[in-house]
Amino acid sequence: MQSFDYCTPTRLIFGKDAIKNLPEVMRPLGKRVLLAYGGGSIKRNGLYDKVKELLADFEIYEFSGIQPNPKYDPNVLEGVRLCKEHNIEVILAVGGGSVLDCSKTVAACAKYDGEPWDLISYKVKAKAALPVVDIITFAATGSEYDKNSVISRTETNDKFSYIDPLLYPVCSILDPTYTFTVSKRQTAAGCADAINHIMEQYFCETSTLLNDGFMEAGIKSLMVNGVKCLENPEDYEARAEMMLACTFGCNGIYSLGNSSSLWPCHCIEHALSAYYDITHGEGLAIITPRWMKHILNEKTIGRFVKYGVNVFGIDAGLDPYEIAEKAIEATYRFFESLGLPMHLKEVGIDESRLGEMTRHIAEKEGLENAWAPLTEKDVMEILTASL
Amino acid sequence: MQSFDYCTPTRLIFGKDAIKNLPEVMRPLGKRVLLAYGGGSIKRNGLYDKVKELLADFEIYEFSGIQPNPKYDPNVLEGVRLCKEHNIEVILAVGGGSVLDCSKTVAACAKYDGEPWDLISYKVKAKAALPVVDIITFAATGSEYDKNSVISRTETNDKFSYIDPLLYPVCSILDPTYTFTVSKRQTAAGCADAINHIMEQYFCETSTLLNDGFMEAGIKSLMVNGVKCLENPEDYEARAEMMLACTFGCNGIYSLGNSSSLWPCHCIEHALSAYYDITHGEGLAIITPRWMKHILNEKTIGRFVKYGVNVFGIDAGLDPYEIAEKAIEATYRFFESLGLPMHLKEVGIDESRLGEMTRHIAEKEGLENAWAPLTEKDVMEILTASL
Repeated sequence: MQSFDYCTPTRLIFGKDAIKNLPEVMRPLGKRVLLAYGGGSIKRNGLYDKVKELLADFEIYEFSGIQPNPKYDPNVLEGVRLCKEHNIEVILAVGGGSVLDCSKTVAACAKYDGEPWDLISYKVKAKAALPVVDIITFAATGSEYDKNSVISRTETNDKFSYIDPLLYPVCSILDPTYTFTVSKRQTAAGCADAINHIMEQYFCETSTLLNDGFMEAGIKSLMVNGVKCLENPEDYEARAEMMLACTFGCNGIYSLGNSSSLWPCHCIEHALSAYYDITHGEGLAIITPRWMKHILNEKTIGRFVKYGVNVFGIDAGLDPYEIAEKAIEATYRFFESLGLPMHLKEVGIDESRLGEMTRHIAEKEGLENAWAPLTEKDVMEILTASL
Repeated sequence: MQSFDYCTPTRLIFGKDAIKNLPEVMRPLGKRVLLAYGGGSIKRNGLYDKVKELLADFEIYEFSGIQPNPKYDPNVLEGVRLCKEHNIEVILAVGGGSVLDCSKTVAACAKYDGEPWDLISYKVKAKAALPVVDIITFAATGSEYDKNSVISRTETNDKFSYIDPLLYPVCSILDPTYTFTVSKRQTAAGCADAINHIMEQYFCETSTLLNDGFMEAGIKSLMVNGVKCLENPEDYEARAEMMLACTFGCNGIYSLGNSSSLWPCHCIEHALSAYYDITHGEGLAIITPRWMKHILNEKTIGRFVKYGVNVFGIDAGLDPYEIAEKAIEATYRFFESLGLPMHLKEVGIDESRLGEMTRHIAEKEGLENAWAPLTEKDVMEILTASL
């Protein structure tokens, strides 16, 4: 087991009407609030009005229009400008992972006097951040319980992971009923994203019985509940369990003490969504089974066998490669059964920029150091198989 | 799924030589340190000297002799007196669960002007607590990652659970090598304690696929690694995994959103160790299988079947009661295989005070409200079967 240093200080308030705790949560953090949200769905479903009502005695400044795959320019820059202009004391992010990622980055950059990019590019280490509280309306990214954010820079087709312990939200309010209105397509994409978060950790050099059991439980729970959420979008139990399982995705609890690895599917998908602005979870659903197939070899077979037997219940007595291939096929079929696009062409990506994206990945991501190393040629083969 | 409000802010620094981080952890908390420990094993194994060396520029006041099943009088009272006398700023607890439980309670009581018992008995709610840092030398209780403490009051034969979010340690330093010298008997008792923590949560009205998977992984990991630790006390991987699995025992992560329940085996065992000062984990190993057998009925059978199939791999096609009985038998045999005493008489408890203890439990613990309700008569039957 590897040594580790772990702390997730975020408070989770979970359940129907959890929002009623909002004033008590916000009060000690400050009166001047930046209310961050996306395209306005929170106005249509009443959440916006509810927040304004609960925070009637706070000074609220709005930061709206945060895009999916949030952009450094204009999203982050605008948020930082608003924080500085209005002496914001606390950010309240209401939305999904994009709104929250953007808000977390803004929280750090607002306390820094230089160019925000200095922090995101790790040229300068942040010394402080505004406190962030969030109300999650979409289960997927786990951003509500981690120190990570992903920010896109359009002009260079980059998606940057900006990670800092200062970015943990102070409190995340999780009400499964807010996800009842998430579309089938987004629900499926969120499920694929959350499953992939666990798989990126599962396929590694060394793990423990404890972590493997946690991760297998997470994957199985997401598979079963993802299907239930699609069948009945207002199934509270299914939405609740999916929300909770997503929450643990990226805060490290699934792999405490495991050998660390890069997250290869995320590295590849980040290029796809940086170049084509596709939905992250859809990109992951397409890439994951092709990546699995590509990396299956004598070194990796053991993990695939464990995955196949423990997640899909494949007969442990079969030949290891047969188990592995069945497991990869079952993964593909599962994503397909959610109605997800399973080919890049279905999300508008053809072969024209594969070379460019592949080079970008090879130059920036260091995937030759992954548990199952990937060269530029490997990435090209995975993308070509995904077309 | 039930609503919940969850936060475990403790930092875990885990691994060989994790102690080297101690000065960096302690520095921001204060210079005046109460060094709390038990019977002196930390002097024999060099840990005491190491701590003094690392904290050479701190002012250290010693609080030694904390007993197993720590006592309100003298342990808690002495700790509080020392804190007040020396204007202690931070408590460093070095030892197992008893040292840490005592230190956490002292931390709250030291910031209170009245009689410490006011807090422990919940007559008064604590407003503040000294920060606590711990170095764990024994894997079992999970006190290093929770807000709980258990304090005994000899004159009334009570063991009180004092629980308050102020009691979370700021930082827990977990070095598996410190558990290499834990005796076989204590290792086995710790394993049984940690397994029972999960079982108390597993046997409940409603759970989720996610939580069940987490708990089954925890139990299986503790069983496999408990055996390995006994076979080879210096097996780093086994000691490490056991330490980590114990850490999650009581902080609620295993049962987020589950229906809550009392912890019946703990309620019963607390009486045993209050009256007889026996080792907590040994008491639990004796009680648990008898409690299981006693509560097996039409209402509880489903959970036993799940436990039997998923933890012990019992054939799911068998009759449910056959599965349940095999699972209970396997639980008994497992504890027995660790070399644990499996009868109360082996730990010095005969029938003479069963009536008194049973009445005590019936009056204080409210077990008629447990998931599987227990009357005074039920408790007597469980204890009699345990003799």
